[in-house]
Amino acid sequence: MVSGDERIILLDHGSGGRATHRLLREIILPAFGQEDYLLDAALLELNTSSLAFTTDGFVVDPIFFPGGNIGSLAVHGTVNDLAMAGAEPLYLSCGLILEEGLPVDDLRRVVESMAEAAREVGVRIVCGDTKVVPRGKADRIFIHTTGIGKIILEPPPHPSRIRPGDEILVSGPVGEHGLAVLAARENIPLRGLSSDSAPVWPLVQALIQGLGTEIHALRDPTRGGLATTLNELARESGTEMEIREEDLPLRPEVRGGCEILGLDPLYLACEGRFVAIVAPGAGTRALEILRKLPGGEQASLIGRVRTASENPRVILRTSIGGERILPVLTGEPLPRIC
Amino acid sequence: MVSGDERIILLDHGSGGRATHRLLREIILPAFGQEDYLLDAALLELNTSSLAFTTDGFVVDPIFFPGGNIGSLAVHGTVNDLAMAGAEPLYLSCGLILEEGLPVDDLRRVVESMAEAAREVGVRIVCGDTKVVPRGKADRIFIHTTGIGKIILEPPPHPSRIRPGDEILVSGPVGEHGLAVLAARENIPLRGLSSDSAPVWPLVQALIQGLGTEIHALRDPTRGGLATTLNELARESGTEMEIREEDLPLRPEVRGGCEILGLDPLYLACEGRFVAIVAPGAGTRALEILRKLPGGEQASLIGRVRTASENPRVILRTSIGGERILPVLTGEPLPRIC
Repeated sequence: MVSGDERIILLDHGSGGRATHRLLREIILPAFGQEDYLLDAALLELNTSSLAFTTDGFVVDPIFFPGGNIGSLAVHGTVNDLAMAGAEPLYLSCGLILEEGLPVDDLRRVVESMAEAAREVGVRIVCGDTKVVPRGKADRIFIHTTGIGKIILEPPPHPSRIRPGDEILVSGPVGEHGLAVLAARENIPLRGLSSDSAPVWPLVQALIQGLGTEIHALRDPTRGGLATTLNELARESGTEMEIREEDLPLRPEVRGGCEILGLDPLYLACEGRFVAIVAPGAGTRALEILRKLPGGEQASLIGRVRTASENPRVILRTSIGGERILPVLTGEPLPRIC
Repeated sequence: MVSGDERIILLDHGSGGRATHRLLREIILPAFGQEDYLLDAALLELNTSSLAFTTDGFVVDPIFFPGGNIGSLAVHGTVNDLAMAGAEPLYLSCGLILEEGLPVDDLRRVVESMAEAAREVGVRIVCGDTKVVPRGKADRIFIHTTGIGKIILEPPPHPSRIRPGDEILVSGPVGEHGLAVLAARENIPLRGLSSDSAPVWPLVQALIQGLGTEIHALRDPTRGGLATTLNELARESGTEMEIREEDLPLRPEVRGGCEILGLDPLYLACEGRFVAIVAPGAGTRALEILRKLPGGEQASLIGRVRTASENPRVILRTSIGGERILPVLTGEPLPRIC
């Protein structure tokens, strides 16, 4: 421990004493726009009693990657989970675990990115906690964000509301976050790749305003990618789904990068996309709404719910007219993608 | 990675695929009494719109120690932070970061302890997230818990309500959690030590019922111990406080252990105690309430707020009649005590 060296995080920053207070007052609270913290808990006055509550952990490696960093990702991830429950994101908590030796400038960049991402989507980071562990006992920085949102769609989107005939949309091209992080981690020179990490709430809000309860289910295809998310929804709704390969939005850079690396983009995480399952006939209207908005330009109707099924599964209709089962991810971990 | 080996946590358990689902369905959800999870967020219906919201991270080493483990501690810590805001604890989220290689049985013990601690205090763990990082990138298990509570005292306890003449209580003997964890970590054979980790809500609830707004401030002396907590309260209220050494409750095992190890028990963390600052004359009634309840038998009136002060500080009146300043903790980190 280099006493007095303020360029790196020291164990003392986690002691609860003077160094902890200084770190909070000089780096973390100013970024989050909090003047001071005088309570162990934030006091919130909401104009609702129907809440969504969700938490997500972030251990992405590397912590900085094209299109974002662990801080912006930690805000987007939890805000998006609230949106998927049909809830307007309101408040976030921020739990940090720091490795001794982390450059203070890295921490500053991360919390400033969190603050910026929160401002962009209109949520407030109102409470937090910071721990420090010795060198080698963590990997630079881990974050948990937990969110509170106001439910604005009743009944909320839920897999149990999925019915045969429902139409399946995805809000934009898939797989870019996963591929961008992998490429950054392994120093693979793939051009033009950038994480899709973004808040989906503006798109979801517009969809709720336009379609209301014709939205049957929402889910963001994070870990495990689009294929895993669709399989979850099929299983949870007891249905067979059909996806058309030719309608899957894929950026050429993702298609090319996956071919080079032998990866299937349908299993790569997105952090700024969502799947919507909507009532029969509502798909085209959903597309119209989404495509007018930033981030929704490449929204696509990708398939439909075929039938109720005791053997839930997802069928991929390939571009050349064949069919194959799109399995659940198994045994191929892409760790630390979020 | 030992594929198919279910006795230890594998990277695949964090992939979002089959192994993740099995871990959730077989270990985590049953412990928390959740049948299944079908949404990215828990939906809560509260009978209030005034909430307290708080988060805390837990990186304690070792993860099992006399009197508790990282799981029970993670519930107590956040429940206690809600109680300190005068809020009834209602809901918790649970974020887990697991190191590859963690024995699954250790994880099971931890989540079962979380569930038991939650049941004991009447809160529900309603959402969570699990990540796995490679060996050597974390230390067994880190936890963030985030809590929502219902504010039942208006105005809530707050340092700005502290006034000269107020009386200062502590709910029980201090320093035992910190010393018990240190002794366990370093294999120091100190007898009869056990963490004080416990929920303080039952005591706080009784105090609120008995004293109402005569409670001016509440704070739990965790990292940095009683001395640091009192210094924070003095600073935040702009007052000078006086503490009487002879009235500080200390178990003989803590006093003895601290003498052997050269530690000051006033700087050791508690995880089941709180400091209450109450209106002049309310201290004796507070003691009567607390001492009747389990965990409050050794509650003690330890001092008073002397004066408003532009130089906030805490004065310790020693047993032999002298006075000394009780400083803020600095440069002596006891890392990973919680």
